[in-house]
Amino acid sequence: MQTPWEYRYAHRTQKMGSSVIRELLKLTEQPDIISFAGGLPAPEVFPLKEFQEACNVVLKEQGAQALQYSTTEGYRPLREMIARHTSRYMVEVSPENILITSGSQQALDFVGRLFINRGDYIVVESPTYLGALQAWNAYGAQYVPVRMDENGMVVEELEAALRIGPKFIYVLPNFQNPSGVTLSLERRKKLIELADKYGVPIIEDDPYGQLRYEGEHIPSLVALDGEMRGKNGGAYTGNVIYLSTFSKLLAPGLRLAWVIAPEQVIHKLVMSKQAADLHTASFNQYVAYAVGKGGFLDEHVKVIRATYKERRDVMLEMMDEMFPPEVRWTRPQGGMFLWGILPEHMDAAEVLKVAIERKVAFVPGAPFHACGGGQNTMRINFSYSKPEIIREGITRLGATLKEALAKNGHN
Amino acid sequence: MQTPWEYRYAHRTQKMGSSVIRELLKLTEQPDIISFAGGLPAPEVFPLKEFQEACNVVLKEQGAQALQYSTTEGYRPLREMIARHTSRYMVEVSPENILITSGSQQALDFVGRLFINRGDYIVVESPTYLGALQAWNAYGAQYVPVRMDENGMVVEELEAALRIGPKFIYVLPNFQNPSGVTLSLERRKKLIELADKYGVPIIEDDPYGQLRYEGEHIPSLVALDGEMRGKNGGAYTGNVIYLSTFSKLLAPGLRLAWVIAPEQVIHKLVMSKQAADLHTASFNQYVAYAVGKGGFLDEHVKVIRATYKERRDVMLEMMDEMFPPEVRWTRPQGGMFLWGILPEHMDAAEVLKVAIERKVAFVPGAPFHACGGGQNTMRINFSYSKPEIIREGITRLGATLKEALAKNGHN
Repeated sequence: MQTPWEYRYAHRTQKMGSSVIRELLKLTEQPDIISFAGGLPAPEVFPLKEFQEACNVVLKEQGAQALQYSTTEGYRPLREMIARHTSRYMVEVSPENILITSGSQQALDFVGRLFINRGDYIVVESPTYLGALQAWNAYGAQYVPVRMDENGMVVEELEAALRIGPKFIYVLPNFQNPSGVTLSLERRKKLIELADKYGVPIIEDDPYGQLRYEGEHIPSLVALDGEMRGKNGGAYTGNVIYLSTFSKLLAPGLRLAWVIAPEQVIHKLVMSKQAADLHTASFNQYVAYAVGKGGFLDEHVKVIRATYKERRDVMLEMMDEMFPPEVRWTRPQGGMFLWGILPEHMDAAEVLKVAIERKVAFVPGAPFHACGGGQNTMRINFSYSKPEIIREGITRLGATLKEALAKNGHN
Repeated sequence: MQTPWEYRYAHRTQKMGSSVIRELLKLTEQPDIISFAGGLPAPEVFPLKEFQEACNVVLKEQGAQALQYSTTEGYRPLREMIARHTSRYMVEVSPENILITSGSQQALDFVGRLFINRGDYIVVESPTYLGALQAWNAYGAQYVPVRMDENGMVVEELEAALRIGPKFIYVLPNFQNPSGVTLSLERRKKLIELADKYGVPIIEDDPYGQLRYEGEHIPSLVALDGEMRGKNGGAYTGNVIYLSTFSKLLAPGLRLAWVIAPEQVIHKLVMSKQAADLHTASFNQYVAYAVGKGGFLDEHVKVIRATYKERRDVMLEMMDEMFPPEVRWTRPQGGMFLWGILPEHMDAAEVLKVAIERKVAFVPGAPFHACGGGQNTMRINFSYSKPEIIREGITRLGATLKEALAKNGHN
C-alpha cells in the first residue's frame, strides 16, 4: 500500500506549504522578464580571477585539508581574519566569538533553534526580513512587530513591546531588507539601552553594512553595545548576536557567513551546527580566506559600491520620471533594495500579476509583515540588473502602476 | 548587566552539552597520536587534479551562475546525474525525487525536522550512527533499539518494535557505522515487508554502499522496495527515504550529499531546506558535476576500494596477531569501520584513557547505543591511516588491551 506521508509529518512542518506569492514568483523566472524580485548580487562583480587563483593555490598547497572534514566552528585562519576586521572596525572580539555558518539563513535558523520555544514572542521591525520569519515559524515563534519610519524602527514604541517579555529583538539596522531604511544613531543607542534595561538580547542582522553609497557610516549595534560595556580583554561578552555574510562581499554561491556572539552562545551554536550539518564546507572556507587574506576585500568592496550606487541612482531617477505621483518609495543610502508604497487600498500582488504580463517583476510586501498588513507595499531590487535593463524595467513598471491606479480609480 | 543567556535557551538546546567522550576525543587530536577515532576518508584518494581542472572550467565557463544564489532543490544537471546512476543501478527515479543537501548530516537533520514530534519513537539498530541520534535528540525523539548480529538488524525482533507505532525505521544496511556489519538480503526483504505491513517508513542511510571490498553486492532497501511495488513510470513513490553522499566518493570538505524520496516528501524537505540554509553551495555542486559527469567516479571508486581494502586487511591481520583472545571484532566486507567487543565487565572509555597515554585512539562504543549499554564496545576506523601507521597503532592498541585485561583480572 502507499505510505500516507501527509499524516507522518511533525506539527512544525505539517502545515508548511507553498505560498501564493512563491507560486507567482516562479513565473518571474522566465528569461524575458526583467526581475527586480530577487535579492541577487550583480554577477559582474564576482571576482572570478581571484577565485580561480585561490582555488588553484588551495588545491595545490592545502588540498588534503581543504577537502577533508573539519571543525564545526570553522576554519581558524578565516575566523581570525574576521576577528581582526571586527576588532578594528566594530568591537573587540576573539576567534572564540565567531562561528562560520552556511550563509546567514543558517545563522537565523540556529538562532531560532537555540532560543525559540513554541509560542515565544520575538520583536521584529515591520516590515522585516522574510527569511527570518520562515526560519522561526518552524520553531513556533510569535511576533511583536514595531513600526518603522524613515529612520528605522520607531524605538519610542519598543518599550511597550519589551514589556511583553520577548525572547529577543531582531533588527536589520543598515539598508534593511526589505525597506532599504537605516536605523539612526540616536535610535541605535536608545535600542541598546532599552534592551539592556529589560535584559532582552538583540539579534543584529547586517548583510549590507559595508555597502553604503552615501552618508556617514553609523556604528553597528554590537559596536555600540561593546562601547557601553567597556573593555573586556579581547572577548565580546555583551547582549548582541551579530550576523554578517560573504554573500554580498564575495559571492553567495559559496554559502559563507558568520555569527559574532559571547563565547557561551557560540559554544551552544556550535553544538547545534554539529547536529545540523557537522560543519560548513571546508573548501569554501579555505578559498574565501585565500581570496581575502591579502586585504583584497577592502579594495573589492569599493568596486561593488560603485556598481550598486550607479544602479540605485538610475533606478531612483527613472522612478522619479516614470512612477505615478500616488506611489511613494524609500531612497536607501546603501544595500540592495528599495521599498515602494502604493495607495492604501491597492494590492501589490494584483499589480504583480499585471506586471508579469508586461514582463517586469518585484516582490509584493505583504509577506514581510510578521502579523499581516502591507498589501500595498513592494520590494524592488536594484543591485542585480544592469542600468539599461533597470531603465526599461522601471519604464514597464511605471506603466503598469499607472494602469493599475487608473483601473482602481474606476472601482 | 550581563545577559543570563543560559535562561534564554529553548528546551531543545538547554540541556545540550559536551559529552565526556567528546572531551576525551579532543585529546586524540594531538599530532603524535595514531587516531582510529575519526571517520575520515584517506586524503591520498582525493582527486586533486580533477578538482583543479573542474574549478578552472567551472569558473571560466559558468562563473556567474556557479557563484550566484541557486535553487533549493540543487543544481539540476547534478540531480540528473544522480538520477541516471540511481535508475541504472538501484531504482527508477527522476530528478524530482532528489534533493541535494549539505552533507548527509543535514539530510538526517531534515528528516528529524520533517517527521519527529517530541516523544515520537524511532526504530534504530543497536548500535546505530551517533550523528543521527544527535540530530534527532534535538527534536525530542525516543528510540526503540533492535539488536544486531553478524547479519545486521535481527529482523525477527523488529515486528514487536513496529507495534509500538514508531515514526520511522532507521537503518544503515551496508558496512554500518559503527559496527561494520551488513544486513543480509533475506533480512532486507523481510524488513521491507514488515515496514509495508505496518505502514512505517524506512530511512536508509547508505554512505558506503559502493565501498565493498569483497563478497557480492546486495540490493539497497529502496531498490527492493521499488521492485516490490513494480514500475511507476520513472518516479519513485515507495516507502523508503534513501540518503547517500559524495563525502566518501569525492571529498567530505565539499559537504555534498543527496536524498532520494517520493516527490511529495522531497517537496516538504525543500521547504525545510529553504528555511534552514536556502540551498547547498552552488559552486560545490557545479564542481562535483564537472568532476563526475564524464564517468570519472566509476573509475575513481575502484582506487578508493583498493586503498581501503589494503588498509582493512592490514588492520585485521594485525589484530589477529596483536589483540588478546578475550577481545572479539567484526570483519567488515566494506566501509570504513570495524567494531571491537571487550569482555562484558570492561569499559572501553577507561581503555581509551590508557590508549591515549600510549598514543593511540578509537571511539568508545557506548554513545552509539540509543538507550544505554555497550560500554564494552569500540569503533575502529581503518580508512584514514596508512598501512604502516595501522601496524604501529594496532600494536599499541593490542598492548593497551592486554594491560587492561591483566589489570581487570586482578580486580
